[in-house]
Amino acid sequence: MNSAELFDQIKAKKSFLCIGLDSDIQKIPRFLMDTSDPIFAFNKEIIDATHEYAVAYKPNMAFYESMGVTGWNSLEKTVNYLRYNYPNLFIIADAKRGDIGNTSSLYARAFFDAMEFDAVTVAPYMGEDSVKPFLTYVDKWVILLALTSNKGADDFQYMEEDGEKLFECVIKTSSAWGNSDNMMYVVGATRAEMLSDIRKIIPNHFLLVPGVGAQGGSLKEVAENGMNGQCGLLVNSSRQIIYASNKKDFAEKAQVAAKEIQKEMEILLKEGELI
Amino acid sequence: MNSAELFDQIKAKKSFLCIGLDSDIQKIPRFLMDTSDPIFAFNKEIIDATHEYAVAYKPNMAFYESMGVTGWNSLEKTVNYLRYNYPNLFIIADAKRGDIGNTSSLYARAFFDAMEFDAVTVAPYMGEDSVKPFLTYVDKWVILLALTSNKGADDFQYMEEDGEKLFECVIKTSSAWGNSDNMMYVVGATRAEMLSDIRKIIPNHFLLVPGVGAQGGSLKEVAENGMNGQCGLLVNSSRQIIYASNKKDFAEKAQVAAKEIQKEMEILLKEGELI
Repeated sequence: MNSAELFDQIKAKKSFLCIGLDSDIQKIPRFLMDTSDPIFAFNKEIIDATHEYAVAYKPNMAFYESMGVTGWNSLEKTVNYLRYNYPNLFIIADAKRGDIGNTSSLYARAFFDAMEFDAVTVAPYMGEDSVKPFLTYVDKWVILLALTSNKGADDFQYMEEDGEKLFECVIKTSSAWGNSDNMMYVVGATRAEMLSDIRKIIPNHFLLVPGVGAQGGSLKEVAENGMNGQCGLLVNSSRQIIYASNKKDFAEKAQVAAKEIQKEMEILLKEGELI
Repeated sequence: MNSAELFDQIKAKKSFLCIGLDSDIQKIPRFLMDTSDPIFAFNKEIIDATHEYAVAYKPNMAFYESMGVTGWNSLEKTVNYLRYNYPNLFIIADAKRGDIGNTSSLYARAFFDAMEFDAVTVAPYMGEDSVKPFLTYVDKWVILLALTSNKGADDFQYMEEDGEKLFECVIKTSSAWGNSDNMMYVVGATRAEMLSDIRKIIPNHFLLVPGVGAQGGSLKEVAENGMNGQCGLLVNSSRQIIYASNKKDFAEKAQVAAKEIQKEMEILLKEGELI
């Protein structure tokens, strides 16, 4: 999927919502524990209930890896379920990988060949040769960490040399490694005030924005500072949607939560004259 | 295992060798493809042939993830094989993880609970709350990326503010999050000239040093600039050992390669008056 196709989906669904499948065996409704694969059963119901309101899903690798082989199995089933039942959805592996070239190639093989993700989140610390192997795949994306939503972002990401902060340097330098059809950036909603500065560096790239909801970021502020002519935003919500209820009605309540965000996004897309 | 116990192993084996299990299904000897789990069969023979010469093993997650559920299964078997047959070995998950706190906690669960690794490599970009969850486990270690061995290290790791480079800032800041019994740092052998500067910041911490061998770093230079009173070094070699041959004699040739490095390390430990 390229950026124009992604924008088409955003217009069709009047939504730029990404749903984070941070599916934790310790948090999903207890009655699902009777099924043969509780995590997949949970994801399937969440996806079926919410897919009309979202353009992207983002399984977070940590939640699956924490369960070993069982978790990896649930992950593969989830990605296949998304890919073959809802082929227009954009599927992101939230993995934050990045290693020397020959190793990053293997991670790319894991997410783009062994599984059919559209995109993978990558950490920039190790530089160009740790990112480029992911960019050799046609119609696949790197989503590079730029300015993250957590408190620890303050530790290193604002370090400054000659008036340029580390996250700005990461964006400027790395934007030459690919283009706006194979690279996006992670910018936390909790850092919305930086979005307009970031838009000056990369007016056309899509941004994946976590931190709305549980982490306290504002959707309206994100849209006002970060939206471009192709929307250019995928805003993620995880816990607020998938854990809206932990009872029998969990999927129904997830749908209500997703629809509520979609409605807000529809207004913002209209304000931006994109639909 | 704490640092004193690790040093005991180094003295007992006269070695500070870590063997990287970058076991690639496309590179292991073809005849192993007839076994039910070729990657585990390969690892098992490599481990049996080399364990006398190494104090640590470092499976690289990418190589296992690239094979999906099958690979994750081979990984779990490898870690269990190491843990229960050679309990004095130090087992490192080369994962380069790091995410917001609740997610890093899950990665910690994956490597320290679901599997019995001693240590995990972590990327520093997201700061303190992305690292700390790994430090809540007793007798487990974070090995934080500081100055990596690859070319891309030049892109961001040398960025400088007030005379302090990013990798120095990472080391200084993060050394307050833990101590020399639960944190190590990755410093590439290809950057050996920086080791004495790094030793001024962290005289006591262990360093995990990749890049000797295939990547061109010099073991002698690493020891001269980086060794401390507890040795303080784990030097990794992967391809040079595990792919010493791709024929029936692969384990035997791996043993020869490991022993050769161990002999060189023995001399360096004697020169450092540690044995």
